Amino acid sequence: MKQGDSMIIKIGIVQMLVSGNKSDNLRRAEGMILEAAEKGANLIALPEMFNCPYQQGLFPLFAEEIESGETRVFLSKMAGKTGAYLIGGSVPERDGTKIYNTSMIFDPRGQLLAKHRKMHLFDIAIKDRIEFCESAVLTPGDEITTFGTEFGNFGTVICYDLRFPELFRLMIERGIIGAFVPAAFNMTTGPAHWETLFKTRAIDNQIYMVGISPARDENAGYVAYGHSLIVDPWGELIWKAGFGAEVAVVSVETDQVSQVRKNLPLLAHRRLDRYQIKER
Amino acid sequence: MKQGDSMIIKIGIVQMLVSGNKSDNLRRAEGMILEAAEKGANLIALPEMFNCPYQQGLFPLFAEEIESGETRVFLSKMAGKTGAYLIGGSVPERDGTKIYNTSMIFDPRGQLLAKHRKMHLFDIAIKDRIEFCESAVLTPGDEITTFGTEFGNFGTVICYDLRFPELFRLMIERGIIGAFVPAAFNMTTGPAHWETLFKTRAIDNQIYMVGISPARDENAGYVAYGHSLIVDPWGELIWKAGFGAEVAVVSVETDQVSQVRKNLPLLAHRRLDRYQIKER
Repeated sequence: MKQGDSMIIKIGIVQMLVSGNKSDNLRRAEGMILEAAEKGANLIALPEMFNCPYQQGLFPLFAEEIESGETRVFLSKMAGKTGAYLIGGSVPERDGTKIYNTSMIFDPRGQLLAKHRKMHLFDIAIKDRIEFCESAVLTPGDEITTFGTEFGNFGTVICYDLRFPELFRLMIERGIIGAFVPAAFNMTTGPAHWETLFKTRAIDNQIYMVGISPARDENAGYVAYGHSLIVDPWGELIWKAGFGAEVAVVSVETDQVSQVRKNLPLLAHRRLDRYQIKER
Repeated sequence: MKQGDSMIIKIGIVQMLVSGNKSDNLRRAEGMILEAAEKGANLIALPEMFNCPYQQGLFPLFAEEIESGETRVFLSKMAGKTGAYLIGGSVPERDGTKIYNTSMIFDPRGQLLAKHRKMHLFDIAIKDRIEFCESAVLTPGDEITTFGTEFGNFGTVICYDLRFPELFRLMIERGIIGAFVPAAFNMTTGPAHWETLFKTRAIDNQIYMVGISPARDENAGYVAYGHSLIVDPWGELIWKAGFGAEVAVVSVETDQVSQVRKNLPLLAHRRLDRYQIKER
């Protein structure tokens, strides 16, 4: 992207229902990805654990090796077919004896451009409301993930990663203009924190924030909040889904990022002489 | 505070109108501080630039040396008289040829416990909406500010400092359970960012967040947003002022902090093996 040139990006969001049948999930994803592409999406994003219910006991059963897995082949094909970037939500990934919560990102030719392994595992215990312990089954990733497109650089983090502002500062150092967050917040943390966290990461870092949730399934063991959303670099909520299954394509403008950064040069105002976030 | 003991803190908020007459401002502050104390407040907080209109041309005229200044004497006396901790909003401080935006914090005996000099200066230029350039007149402070009380440790930052998540992470390292933020957001940044930023700092750091704004004066050169607020460590807005002059005393419980940190151990989940915020 040339300096000063603004580009419009059409972001496709697939807020899909996730069932206990992997083939059904891939079929459902296919129809919704094609719908987003027909509406002109340049980048299409799926939710966290889109091929597997969000139940830790199922992660080992649904896990695939990334090189050869059915889901990787499927996503690669869909990216090539639609000619869009595809942020493949996340899936349980098997690597030797370890299982990760992994997002695969494909370019419009279907090549794997980047992958993110969830770095922060979600262990929560609120009496009578919500209990979940990812770390009992999953291994955390160690890498910060950004990738380049002709629209600019983007980052991907998964769900609980959203809660750690350090990660966004490190992605900013790599020049991102937006971040995709496949995420299954629940009926406790969703109403309390979902929208607020997306807004603040956008405001603090002056980037687009895109959250992609599974559709809510009241009968599931873990009930996802839904309400996928896009927040602009000024912190304004420009689009928000309901809680059911939904495909949307939303246009955003790249020069909003530079405009906001020019108006209020927050990032330049950091006191990097007094503190700094370092990767170790 | 002993481990496991919960204490109730009564926080007094003085959302006062600030005029161009310093003596009037101190008189008005006095009445409102006494009102908060009568209602039982243990910690009383004033807004940013409570003795001086928020106009950069006036800062040099209103500035006082901290050792001997009229406002310091006034605040010390009020803390001793009420027997409450007093977070003295902020005032223009003169130190040699330099002017700072400084918050003085007094203990219940009237001793100066800590002071914070605004670390991040507010320079903004949004065409036809808001322009302000603190750095033309003020010098930024260099220190992170926390202080101890029998209720626990607290931090103080001033207004624009709120926008820098690094500062809160550094205060967390010093064991704070809450932060006071005297702040004059305006009619552009207030509606867009005020409540969201307080909520996320509370959620991310699992602390109480207290914002203290001047009352709104539509005739002022710089129109403050108002809406002082208190957010609990789960990110819930537990109290919010209107935009006019107002005194409130709000009870909070210290064990809310440990409870939230136990339920969702976010701070322990930081990947400090992969990143760290360091003071330089």
